[in-house]
Amino acid sequence: MTTTGIAPDRFRQQLSALNAAPLWDVLATLVPPQPRSNAVPNVWRWAQLRPQLLAAGELISAEEAERRVLMLCNPGIVGRRQVTDTLYAGLQLIHPGESARAHRHSQSALRFVLEGEGGFTSVDGLRADMRRGDFIVTPSWKWHDHGNDGDGPVMWLDGLDVPLVSFLQAGFREEHEAVRFPARGSAEQVFHRYGNGLLPLERRDAGSTSPIFSYPYERTRESLEQLVSAGEIDEYRGAVVRYANPLNGDWAMPSIGAWMQCLPKRWKPLHTRSTDSVVLTVVEGTPTIEIDGEVPVLLQPNDVFVVPGWRRWRALAGDTEDAVIFAYSDRPVHEKLGLYREQLG
Amino acid sequence: MTTTGIAPDRFRQQLSALNAAPLWDVLATLVPPQPRSNAVPNVWRWAQLRPQLLAAGELISAEEAERRVLMLCNPGIVGRRQVTDTLYAGLQLIHPGESARAHRHSQSALRFVLEGEGGFTSVDGLRADMRRGDFIVTPSWKWHDHGNDGDGPVMWLDGLDVPLVSFLQAGFREEHEAVRFPARGSAEQVFHRYGNGLLPLERRDAGSTSPIFSYPYERTRESLEQLVSAGEIDEYRGAVVRYANPLNGDWAMPSIGAWMQCLPKRWKPLHTRSTDSVVLTVVEGTPTIEIDGEVPVLLQPNDVFVVPGWRRWRALAGDTEDAVIFAYSDRPVHEKLGLYREQLG
Amino acid sequence: MTTTGIAPDRFRQQLSALNAAPLWDVLATLVPPQPRSNAVPNVWRWAQLRPQLLAAGELISAEEAERRVLMLCNPGIVGRRQVTDTLYAGLQLIHPGESARAHRHSQSALRFVLEGEGGFTSVDGLRADMRRGDFIVTPSWKWHDHGNDGDGPVMWLDGLDVPLVSFLQAGFREEHEAVRFPARGSAEQVFHRYGNGLLPLERRDAGSTSPIFSYPYERTRESLEQLVSAGEIDEYRGAVVRYANPLNGDWAMPSIGAWMQCLPKRWKPLHTRSTDSVVLTVVEGTPTIEIDGEVPVLLQPNDVFVVPGWRRWRALAGDTEDAVIFAYSDRPVHEKLGLYREQLG
Amino acid sequence: MTTTGIAPDRFRQQLSALNAAPLWDVLATLVPPQPRSNAVPNVWRWAQLRPQLLAAGELISAEEAERRVLMLCNPGIVGRRQVTDTLYAGLQLIHPGESARAHRHSQSALRFVLEGEGGFTSVDGLRADMRRGDFIVTPSWKWHDHGNDGDGPVMWLDGLDVPLVSFLQAGFREEHEAVRFPARGSAEQVFHRYGNGLLPLERRDAGSTSPIFSYPYERTRESLEQLVSAGEIDEYRGAVVRYANPLNGDWAMPSIGAWMQCLPKRWKPLHTRSTDSVVLTVVEGTPTIEIDGEVPVLLQPNDVFVVPGWRRWRALAGDTEDAVIFAYSDRPVHEKLGLYREQLG
Repeated sequence: MTTTGIAPDRFRQQLSALNAAPLWDVLATLVPPQPRSNAVPNVWRWAQLRPQLLAAGELISAEEAERRVLMLCNPGIVGRRQVTDTLYAGLQLIHPGESARAHRHSQSALRFVLEGEGGFTSVDGLRADMRRGDFIVTPSWKWHDHGNDGDGPVMWLDGLDVPLVSFLQAGFREEHEAVRFPARGSAEQVFHRYGNGLLPLERRDAGSTSPIFSYPYERTRESLEQLVSAGEIDEYRGAVVRYANPLNGDWAMPSIGAWMQCLPKRWKPLHTRSTDSVVLTVVEGTPTIEIDGEVPVLLQPNDVFVVPGWRRWRALAGDTEDAVIFAYSDRPVHEKLGLYREQLG
Repeated sequence: MTTTGIAPDRFRQQLSALNAAPLWDVLATLVPPQPRSNAVPNVWRWAQLRPQLLAAGELISAEEAERRVLMLCNPGIVGRRQVTDTLYAGLQLIHPGESARAHRHSQSALRFVLEGEGGFTSVDGLRADMRRGDFIVTPSWKWHDHGNDGDGPVMWLDGLDVPLVSFLQAGFREEHEAVRFPARGSAEQVFHRYGNGLLPLERRDAGSTSPIFSYPYERTRESLEQLVSAGEIDEYRGAVVRYANPLNGDWAMPSIGAWMQCLPKRWKPLHTRSTDSVVLTVVEGTPTIEIDGEVPVLLQPNDVFVVPGWRRWRALAGDTEDAVIFAYSDRPVHEKLGLYREQLG
Repeated sequence: MTTTGIAPDRFRQQLSALNAAPLWDVLATLVPPQPRSNAVPNVWRWAQLRPQLLAAGELISAEEAERRVLMLCNPGIVGRRQVTDTLYAGLQLIHPGESARAHRHSQSALRFVLEGEGGFTSVDGLRADMRRGDFIVTPSWKWHDHGNDGDGPVMWLDGLDVPLVSFLQAGFREEHEAVRFPARGSAEQVFHRYGNGLLPLERRDAGSTSPIFSYPYERTRESLEQLVSAGEIDEYRGAVVRYANPLNGDWAMPSIGAWMQCLPKRWKPLHTRSTDSVVLTVVEGTPTIEIDGEVPVLLQPNDVFVVPGWRRWRALAGDTEDAVIFAYSDRPVHEKLGLYREQLG
Repeated sequence: MTTTGIAPDRFRQQLSALNAAPLWDVLATLVPPQPRSNAVPNVWRWAQLRPQLLAAGELISAEEAERRVLMLCNPGIVGRRQVTDTLYAGLQLIHPGESARAHRHSQSALRFVLEGEGGFTSVDGLRADMRRGDFIVTPSWKWHDHGNDGDGPVMWLDGLDVPLVSFLQAGFREEHEAVRFPARGSAEQVFHRYGNGLLPLERRDAGSTSPIFSYPYERTRESLEQLVSAGEIDEYRGAVVRYANPLNGDWAMPSIGAWMQCLPKRWKPLHTRSTDSVVLTVVEGTPTIEIDGEVPVLLQPNDVFVVPGWRRWRALAGDTEDAVIFAYSDRPVHEKLGLYREQLG
């Protein structure tokens, strides 16, 4: 073998022509010592975005209501329309009488209701009324539409796995021929079939998403109360419950994990960090988010905050009142692929 | 093939001395063409047993209250103290102020409340109040005790896997040093942690029994209502819900399956048969049980009935009112061992 | 509490007429403090039973060959035809040219080959040749038949869950119209599809029994060699491997667990006890079985021994040569029902 | 609410300052009607790349051998170093006497051996010898190193989930203090413990990767033989086996699925398409790859080809000889997240 004295540049050119490249130039960046998320911690202030959302209500006609959403763009991720490396977040507004046309997509979506009465989401014709603090899932590839039967604007936080599904090139979307999918019942009925510790007699395939798709705040809040009163306070996250799939105990959604935490006032949690990135919003109180190397941020209700993966952090309630936080992250993806890692304390 | 004159009798004697025996004498009985349960269909009338149970209250002192139970003995199973081939059933009475001493055993137990106010069961110090129609589990090897804080007698149906555990020689029992296990909280708290479609954030071993151990009738009844109103009527069992373990979607107990059925009035279900044996009692209405080859039996509330395995049967509500039936069986055992079989229609 | 003079005897008579009985008479026996197996430790000597098995070959015609089995009857279990509380064992003989008619039953069966060349079992037409030390499964409800193409008698140990299935009243049996199920291939082919760390591309239901149904001794022995040479010696059981279902990692059979142990010479294991009852036979060497409170028993190849549940015991190889033991038990049943318990050391 | 007549441009500026953006500009691109992979079908010719790989052997010193890899760069993915949207592929060379320093990373890696004798990979000190056609896994976060004890160059195809792990920001890497991890045994030993249809007696956590990490071609080829001879030909993929985890029947790796297909000569498979992207290389024969809308490509042994997701395609063997293809894809990720979809025929 005698190709002695080959010039590195020429070699690279030859490789490039063959759609190949030397690993030795880039190994360190391909396989880094630890995660370096492009996303940065950031807060989106409800006080600033709410007026913009209402303004969008004037720019965007009722016919286009389903697209009337303000995307939350992580400042660290250039040119992308996403709140973390894998997840999307948006603020949606629907005015009275408006509705978002029925459609379905392989992306999984969650709605967390921030303000307003009379809004609803329907999934395969099962209607879930929207009230502040409610967590609602629109499962992958299920028909869904939204509407507002009330007399004021309804606003919520949208969470989707859009960047993940785009990355995996597994996105499908279909419009329903009708604006509204024919009504079949209510989310409350579904809950009473799957959410009372009861299940159908005959097993069926658990599928990938919980049959329960609406988790009213009233119930979740009561569960948090019970944990607090029983003193079951996780030393990292306070009183915390996970939205679950009763058919298998898994997360409610296959790619997005969601939970709610109650942070007792004057209580000091320990720090933690994990590989998943967390999007959170405030339901009650004015918690402070502390991230190593960052200025602590005091949050107001409905503010949205992002904690990128592998950043050491904690959330505190403050001294005057408890705080309740809703959070979602890509933790299920990390877990299912054997990549989830956390450091406690 | 010439038989070199060995006498069959002598041969049997030789074998017997060696603790062996010829299969050819008994093959047919060892491996029958289909199940032939020793148990027979039978009804236990509440009107007849309630007075006996109260009489037992006079025979058995408060100190022995835990043992004050009338066992239901299947007439087909000679000398055994069991209601089916694998399960036990009993009627238990506790008077005001009495309590059953805290103990635990590897047998799994269920309580289905028939009458009275003020009774309670506690599991590991978590108290479940007992009301008519409530389904309560005392899991294998968990400390439990019973009591009655009311001012009248409390009576319930006990269901245990005693014959199964005896057969498997896996029975362990331990008495607690104290009469009452120290109070730690309530079943209601537990429900709010596991039964709202919510679960603890961190996974833990699902264990073999549901963390929910009390399923109040109020909730189960509401779920049945929802099924009926939504027209979700199973053509064999009417509206039916299964008591489940939210951590994995399995049955609430590892060896005993339990469910509740609502049979709409004037509705005619199809017949079915399965390998498991079913113990049922009436919560509402006066259903009729039809078993092939048997005289139909009209049941009154709190009557207990047994349908042996592999008998073709159905339950009807009658024309005047809906009927609600509680049932338990050894179906989980058959399923887990790959032996469950059913014939529908 | 005043007893209004009801006579206990009369009370019992009234109850009996109602198919009920007082629990307080029998509670202690129904729920004992710990297991008290009826089965006793016992050895069946190959030197004594082999001649009887050959004699049976003369008593029973070729046509009835399938029934030509000597059942091993545990002396502690009166009137029953079983080797432990839940399992059956038998010694079967097939002469050259004979065959056992094709049939199927819901009972699961294992064959462990003791002596002879040329024997075979076929499952759904897939033929497994039988050689000394081979472990072969005939799964629940699969057609199977046996034959002998060799020129000498073939003898093996049968292990079935007959008592368990009888207890559960889940036994079904069917004769095939043909003596022999049409040939479809070989167990070796099946092994190459499921047993090389490879599986079919598309998932299918794992079912309850391993698709591999023949585990030749040659492979098992080699695996034991590897464990010994790597020093992977379990301090209780020596080098040990479990016959497994590659589709889910479960036991090869739903109700019977089977494994093989190699006990190095001069090696002293620790004692252990567990709730399952173990049937074992010797493949190589002359191990000694020590059970607390019993006289140690020295075993010869093909001797069969039973260790009842919850008896503290160990097996030793002796000083001159390693010993290899094949064992089967009802451990999977105890595990799946949450009843398995063991005490190590 | 009176923000009437707000100028769209100004509105966008305001949003941008708040790290938000209008969804209505980009909805169609975020949630497309169906996948549009950036990756394009492409072939990498062994005849062209082998000389370059040998040339790299002169440019890169022995000390840096581990980095002496030619990455295969999909022409459709600008600036990225990857073969599909989620996977990495590279060609690695190790000369006699060289070794790649021991290290570990959370990325999962596979090696498929293309040429040479005497190479080896060790995982946690367990050595796997490398022969042409062998499939070897280096599991996430396990120590591994490579070497060449032979007297000629050894070359293999590297497959990693680097782009996926980068996207998820879950990459960790660590160098071992020693060049070589202390030797503990061989992959062959491991296979005999887990790959013979046998498993350890005691269950342990299945983890996310198969304990078997080396699948020699000899065994895989034999399994394919058995399928062909038994006529078990999948109408889409010919005779096909999947590299599996015997502890749970899952894929051998959590994020990468790998399989091997034997395409009989003159056999015409049906077309198929699925959401995962496939990287394949030729082990035997000269198959042709047909993709809708593309010119068919005739492949030679060791050529590498990529089929992007959701492209309709098939592989044919040709008329003169069977073809054997090794393939890997991100199918497990799509399956675990409920996003896998395929269209057969």
